[in-house]
Amino acid sequence: MTSRFSFDITHRDPQTVARSGLLTTAHGSVRTPAFVGVATRATIKALEPQALIDIGLQIVISNTYHLHLQPGEDVIASLGGLHGFSGWNRPTMTDSGGFQVFSLGASKEHGVGKVASIFPGNSPSTKPKVRPSKPLVKLTEQGVDFRSILDGSPHTFTPESVITIERKLGADIIVPLDECTSPLHDHAYTKNSMERTHRWARRGLAAFQFLKDDPTFPNPHQVLYGIVQGGAYQDLRLESARFIGELPFDGFAIGGSLGRSKTDMWNVLDWSIPLLRDEAPRHLLGIGEIEDLFTCIARGIDTFDCAAPTRLARNGSVFLKGAPRHRINLRNARFISDDGPIDPTCDCFTCQNHSRAYLRHLCRVGEFTFYRLATLHNLRFLVRLMAEIRDAIDDARLTALARDWGFRL
Amino acid sequence: MTSRFSFDITHRDPQTVARSGLLTTAHGSVRTPAFVGVATRATIKALEPQALIDIGLQIVISNTYHLHLQPGEDVIASLGGLHGFSGWNRPTMTDSGGFQVFSLGASKEHGVGKVASIFPGNSPSTKPKVRPSKPLVKLTEQGVDFRSILDGSPHTFTPESVITIERKLGADIIVPLDECTSPLHDHAYTKNSMERTHRWARRGLAAFQFLKDDPTFPNPHQVLYGIVQGGAYQDLRLESARFIGELPFDGFAIGGSLGRSKTDMWNVLDWSIPLLRDEAPRHLLGIGEIEDLFTCIARGIDTFDCAAPTRLARNGSVFLKGAPRHRINLRNARFISDDGPIDPTCDCFTCQNHSRAYLRHLCRVGEFTFYRLATLHNLRFLVRLMAEIRDAIDDARLTALARDWGFRL
Repeated sequence: MTSRFSFDITHRDPQTVARSGLLTTAHGSVRTPAFVGVATRATIKALEPQALIDIGLQIVISNTYHLHLQPGEDVIASLGGLHGFSGWNRPTMTDSGGFQVFSLGASKEHGVGKVASIFPGNSPSTKPKVRPSKPLVKLTEQGVDFRSILDGSPHTFTPESVITIERKLGADIIVPLDECTSPLHDHAYTKNSMERTHRWARRGLAAFQFLKDDPTFPNPHQVLYGIVQGGAYQDLRLESARFIGELPFDGFAIGGSLGRSKTDMWNVLDWSIPLLRDEAPRHLLGIGEIEDLFTCIARGIDTFDCAAPTRLARNGSVFLKGAPRHRINLRNARFISDDGPIDPTCDCFTCQNHSRAYLRHLCRVGEFTFYRLATLHNLRFLVRLMAEIRDAIDDARLTALARDWGFRL
Repeated sequence: MTSRFSFDITHRDPQTVARSGLLTTAHGSVRTPAFVGVATRATIKALEPQALIDIGLQIVISNTYHLHLQPGEDVIASLGGLHGFSGWNRPTMTDSGGFQVFSLGASKEHGVGKVASIFPGNSPSTKPKVRPSKPLVKLTEQGVDFRSILDGSPHTFTPESVITIERKLGADIIVPLDECTSPLHDHAYTKNSMERTHRWARRGLAAFQFLKDDPTFPNPHQVLYGIVQGGAYQDLRLESARFIGELPFDGFAIGGSLGRSKTDMWNVLDWSIPLLRDEAPRHLLGIGEIEDLFTCIARGIDTFDCAAPTRLARNGSVFLKGAPRHRINLRNARFISDDGPIDPTCDCFTCQNHSRAYLRHLCRVGEFTFYRLATLHNLRFLVRLMAEIRDAIDDARLTALARDWGFRL
């Protein structure tokens, strides 16, 4: 089966390692750098696929762990994979389930996210409904035994089974099972975990190649990205990038703990990215504050996924260039009679139709309508920002654009 | 100030007292019979105003009690009333607050709705967040003292203050403060309550006339409907319809307890409606099952509001002609791999774009997207049903249409 996947780098920023490009999948192309919308359970919260098309969102990522539990990969496969099931016929990714291993393990024990303490908005918020006396997660060389957060039922993910699940889900870009370590894990634990993730990466790749020509899966044109691990440790990131970078993956994702600060995160990228084939696309898992978009693109990242922009929206926090952290919280009393839009320069449905006062009211009383209107704005804001960044790369003025937004690259 | 309000009866059914007509307000016309969407807090749950326009919904009703508490009528008035505030520039009603007096009083004590026991879906579901040792509601001749369900703060509604609040909210059709009695109230209580509601109706009307030409309110073209009370007691309904019917209201609403069965409800209508001026529009408060639409239109009702269709949607129950009670519940396991739409004959966005399997998944996992998609379908279904009913009245075949839906008029 010939792959319909390609990645063409169209421009390079002269002052950084940022690049713009075109990522082509069996379900359409993505201009990069791009923000990947988080559709955990096969929908972005509060937005049906048509709304995403109207916004101009190019690609979404869904969650292997959640979809395996509900409704199950066989149901989704029988309905044409995620594309047929959800009606989103555009580029799609699935994650590995590894972050859930992490989020139900270390983060529940220690209360930390991918970057310790600095991204409170990023910490996993799913509370397990079942709290068995046994641990929820058990890692072995073979894979991960875990209990469902829904009903406590036992499940196992292996590198092979996760590839089969993802082939049934049918996203255009998939990743192998990995363990996502915590910033609280020490060097020894992180090294051990990384080495296992490397063995799992080989096994996932072998399973993917073995299943490649099986005609029973909904999407014959899937590709597999490798995931670089190694925590915030330089020797481990170098080793992982070298190891994963040499395997025949179609692209690369940077996963796992990114340390305790923005500087740690930037170091991780600066260590890893030079060791990954330049011509392959690079995805940063679970990161996507506005500052991160600029600083990580400048370090060579092509795509990002992050639940924060949509979660922030549901909490009343909407993007506005120039406000502190480029956002305002509509719960604030100062908006009670404010008849202007969130952002007078924004072309989104929400800003074109509704006032801050109305949105504040809907937010305060917890109306579902608010979740939709705020999410529409935040995603449209990111879509426009990414277009602005791509244009800046094409015109060799990324550093100036970042400065205009208040960031140093 | 000349009223821009009119009601023109265009056709009459030869076999029943059903009629079709055109209700004209300062914000546009409503073809009747019509279903009034329930926008309690100035939004129909999960749908922004543009979605209602796309569906073809003609008119909504908002809740004076809830909007008085949040964000307050002064905020809404300062933003152009409900029309300017919400962006819904079409016909709008507000209720009297009387149902909340009831729902925080008798229904909390006895667990009953407007029609005892037969409409479980209709019973008030708002749980007070504050449970003070003092009663939440105290009725006097002057008005109603109550505590906010939000923070326990004390408030008073009088017939005069409710008119002022509603004038600030600016809906096209408003109603005076009433007490909504319970099916569990006896004849003596109901009579006493009705007589007070009559005195309140006179006071509300006087306040409305006094404020009529005050230019500070957002909508100079509001009209006032009177509310008929009297529970399920024939002598009281006759007395109330005669009393309210003789006052110079622009239309009439049937309120209060409608008894313990459909037969009780039909009796209430059969007693009351002949005593109301035929040329005035008649609204039935809080009723709107599919059977009710047919049987109450046949008894002379022009408009209905009911939260059940949107609440049912959020619970997974969507309308389908011919199914038991003309609805199916998408939570049902039989829909897990069903790739068809809810209703193959439906032109709504949901049926045009999404399968039962996808909707069932979104419902089971509690996604906000589901609430929107299911609500879109149920409201579009009612909009189409009402159009079908209007056409049947115009063509003198309402009884046949009802029979086709399984109902006897």
